[in-house]
Amino acid sequence: MGKIEERLKELGLSLPPAPSPMGSYLPWTRVGNIVFISGQLPRRGNELVYKGKISSQLSIEQGIEASKLCALNAISVLKSAIVELDKVEQILRLTCWVASDADFFDQPKIANGASDLLVEVFGERGKHSRMTTGVIALPANAPVAVDLVVAVE
Amino acid sequence: MGKIEERLKELGLSLPPAPSPMGSYLPWTRVGNIVFISGQLPRRGNELVYKGKISSQLSIEQGIEASKLCALNAISVLKSAIVELDKVEQILRLTCWVASDADFFDQPKIANGASDLLVEVFGERGKHSRMTTGVIALPANAPVAVDLVVAVE
Amino acid sequence: MGKIEERLKELGLSLPPAPSPMGSYLPWTRVGNIVFISGQLPRRGNELVYKGKISSQLSIEQGIEASKLCALNAISVLKSAIVELDKVEQILRLTCWVASDADFFDQPKIANGASDLLVEVFGERGKHSRMTTGVIALPANAPVAVDLVVAVE
Repeated sequence: MGKIEERLKELGLSLPPAPSPMGSYLPWTRVGNIVFISGQLPRRGNELVYKGKISSQLSIEQGIEASKLCALNAISVLKSAIVELDKVEQILRLTCWVASDADFFDQPKIANGASDLLVEVFGERGKHSRMTTGVIALPANAPVAVDLVVAVE
Repeated sequence: MGKIEERLKELGLSLPPAPSPMGSYLPWTRVGNIVFISGQLPRRGNELVYKGKISSQLSIEQGIEASKLCALNAISVLKSAIVELDKVEQILRLTCWVASDADFFDQPKIANGASDLLVEVFGERGKHSRMTTGVIALPANAPVAVDLVVAVE
Repeated sequence: MGKIEERLKELGLSLPPAPSPMGSYLPWTRVGNIVFISGQLPRRGNELVYKGKISSQLSIEQGIEASKLCALNAISVLKSAIVELDKVEQILRLTCWVASDADFFDQPKIANGASDLLVEVFGERGKHSRMTTGVIALPANAPVAVDLVVAVE
């Protein structure tokens, strides 16, 4: 078992099955040592665990949990791309999309759910640049989506 | 005529003229073998063919047509970047932006318009990772925008 | 003093201190000769200079000023990444996120604030591909955010 897999176990985290895409696209692509991970929703398999907008329909706390689940799905897809998670060199970019009411401005708290999880799992290599935005609506009424660009060995 | 040009012809698709940017930017940039295509709207030349939000002002079907037209424009820009479309190695990332009402959650159906067209034209090389989001408004009241990152020879 | 630093001086522009991230992320990451700059808000140090949505709460002119300030912050972060701004080869991608009312469609004018500034500062190397979108809300009620992907020596 690789170091990152051990770390996941230590943290009590189990990877959900890599979700199948919700349309005519691939879960990931790769060029050279850069992997692009498609937008991930807070799903467990085919079930969307959280729905609705933040903060009128879901709390910040629920949004953070949703964001963590997006990141776990992203890690699961990354594993399907590179097989051994120890091959991650650096998470280059995380974009966090938060389905928001017009007067909700705490998107960074939601994004931290995903960001903190990536750092817990990958340490220094999990640190990333980030863009966070509110959006009016996400596919399937998801509250959060996360996509990644990752440098790998 | 290249294979991809022939394929476009077989599909009865003609590339619109590569649209001029709607501001102080370039249609594309390149570093090494990676090309970045600017956000494309559903324009034919300088005319925006579709306007309004999905689903209160435009139907899903209209959104899909708009999304296809964005993808055609992206291919046209890509051709201006690499001259021969046969040099496409892989569409790495498609981001689809759908001007949405707050209760519209079928953005992936709209994005499939662009995604399916890229796969029809480029085959395996047209398959891509994807992020799809709803947004409150797009430039010029466009219903859809598509941008790409492409690996080329 | 490098050429770009001289150019900034000629233009009467002073770089704000590179802003600290508003969450668990890095201001920038790098792989090979590509640098990813995190989303920048119109801040001077820790103060957000502009707040609110365009166009009901801020004018287009204020939005353009906010967009310029985002770009200045991005340059400041870029300097912290590569030390000498003369090492910029090309701004590859600028994404401009405009907190918009549902009936505001002039996002490209806002984005031009950032785009024009990059071209004034970096010349041909500052020209970039671009995606511009309206969004319902940005972190801290910012009216504009800008993120970059940059090719460097």
